[in-house]
Amino acid sequence: MRACIVGAGSIGSLFAGHLATVTDVTVLTRRDEHARALNEEGLRVSGRHDFTARVTAASDARDLPEFDLGIVATKGNVVAAAAESLGGRFPAATMMTVQNGLGAEEIVRAHGSWPLVSAVTFMSGTKHSDTHVEYILDTPTWLGPYGDTPFERVQEIAQLLVDSGLKAEALPDLLPAQWSKLIFNATVNGVAALTGLRHDAHFAAQSDVGDLGHLVHDLVDEGKRVAAGAGVELHDDPWEMNVLATKRGSAHSPSMLEDVLARQPTEVELINGALVREAERHGVEAPLHTALYRLVKAREASYS
Amino acid sequence: MRACIVGAGSIGSLFAGHLATVTDVTVLTRRDEHARALNEEGLRVSGRHDFTARVTAASDARDLPEFDLGIVATKGNVVAAAAESLGGRFPAATMMTVQNGLGAEEIVRAHGSWPLVSAVTFMSGTKHSDTHVEYILDTPTWLGPYGDTPFERVQEIAQLLVDSGLKAEALPDLLPAQWSKLIFNATVNGVAALTGLRHDAHFAAQSDVGDLGHLVHDLVDEGKRVAAGAGVELHDDPWEMNVLATKRGSAHSPSMLEDVLARQPTEVELINGALVREAERHGVEAPLHTALYRLVKAREASYS
Repeated sequence: MRACIVGAGSIGSLFAGHLATVTDVTVLTRRDEHARALNEEGLRVSGRHDFTARVTAASDARDLPEFDLGIVATKGNVVAAAAESLGGRFPAATMMTVQNGLGAEEIVRAHGSWPLVSAVTFMSGTKHSDTHVEYILDTPTWLGPYGDTPFERVQEIAQLLVDSGLKAEALPDLLPAQWSKLIFNATVNGVAALTGLRHDAHFAAQSDVGDLGHLVHDLVDEGKRVAAGAGVELHDDPWEMNVLATKRGSAHSPSMLEDVLARQPTEVELINGALVREAERHGVEAPLHTALYRLVKAREASYS
Repeated sequence: MRACIVGAGSIGSLFAGHLATVTDVTVLTRRDEHARALNEEGLRVSGRHDFTARVTAASDARDLPEFDLGIVATKGNVVAAAAESLGGRFPAATMMTVQNGLGAEEIVRAHGSWPLVSAVTFMSGTKHSDTHVEYILDTPTWLGPYGDTPFERVQEIAQLLVDSGLKAEALPDLLPAQWSKLIFNATVNGVAALTGLRHDAHFAAQSDVGDLGHLVHDLVDEGKRVAAGAGVELHDDPWEMNVLATKRGSAHSPSMLEDVLARQPTEVELINGALVREAERHGVEAPLHTALYRLVKAREASYS
């Protein structure tokens, strides 16, 4: 199963490096020099695993050979541009999305009729350079069929990921996991972006009335009511995910916090915006998530 | 009526400079070199007025001569320290507080039995140096009696301020004005501190569902319900204050935004914390202001 990784940030690089140990991997990058560096130096994975893999990279989709599995691993706000560049090509491919939030599948669908696979990933890495990614958390990627994609296809992809050294599991219905992560991400990313706090013990503190953990808990509860309104039974409790994550040794810096510190566009629309729109669609009140959504968008507006 | 200005930030300097044109003014500063500079160079006021006034400054309350009117113009979070330094002295003085939020009067009361006057000020200035303040907005200061202070005393102080060139008005009950400004400040300062936006047109924008003006409006409405629960009829509509302020030429940078950018303690307790505690006290739900309060406190926690 030839694979193409679209977008080589930390998650894309982790997929590309590992898969390249078991199959032919191509990488579609945004920048020309990134593709050139990967072709010349290969892709080094360090941390939990340690190896350098050969990949074939290009910055133009027209230069890519055919593949069977496309993993769209770009940031949420450039999925549309990436999908558009793939449009009308690669008829044999199944496309898998791994973005945070909700809605990446529909964006890819608008640009082609490929079978689609939904995924959420809990692994994490740090990209040290264009050709070096450190594998930090080896938590799993969960995959499920989107639309009428056969579950067997999802199982084959999960098996390929496992064979490559990553943790992966095929689920007949990904929505419960996707929504658990959606609520977790909308809450933790939004709060981190606004407060400047990494995901640390403040997020679970509930002693004084002014403590942040109260707000985090209220946001999670509100998110659960939206999930219930949408008819989704959660795979994991986002509050427990939050408490567990704050107990890890070093506090994780959520991507939305990194984005606002770098004055970059965030994934607020696919994450917080998606949750607010789902609440609206199902007639569930979500005043706190709506407030968070508006505040993060205003923070983005402050860049200019 | 000899005056002493406690705290010479921009508001304190505006009071000190103007009052020094009509009466003897002493200034209590935190830093020794600030007092020395004022004694040597005087205090320059530019902008709407232009003059240099002689003042007598000291950084230790024990070095201050007697006075009749004390204006406590420090930041909210150092009122306690300032009042403590005045404690047991100046038996002839009436003390006036001009801090944002609620509760400065009680803090001063804890350190002495002086008659108290409450004030809110809408004037603004920019301090260019220890001895130079620019008078920007010549909007008024409103004064009212606190406790059993006679209204005549408040009127005398208002007249002195007017004689000195400032705009001032004595009100028999300051609470309606104080609460209008409290709701305005809790909303605008909190939102600005979290988003990084100056008080600009975003605060009044209500076109798209994600627009910030919706949140600002909801925060103001929630604040009005707290005021109603506290039995206070507002002097001005904080939403109209907000819309009007965003229409001025250049966007004002709220003090809480300045504070978080400088990683300084903010006045969140006297402003947002006071509103949240009033809501609690009167049994009014205030989920959005409570969220804002927790987020700003978390932003402060991120400094360390």
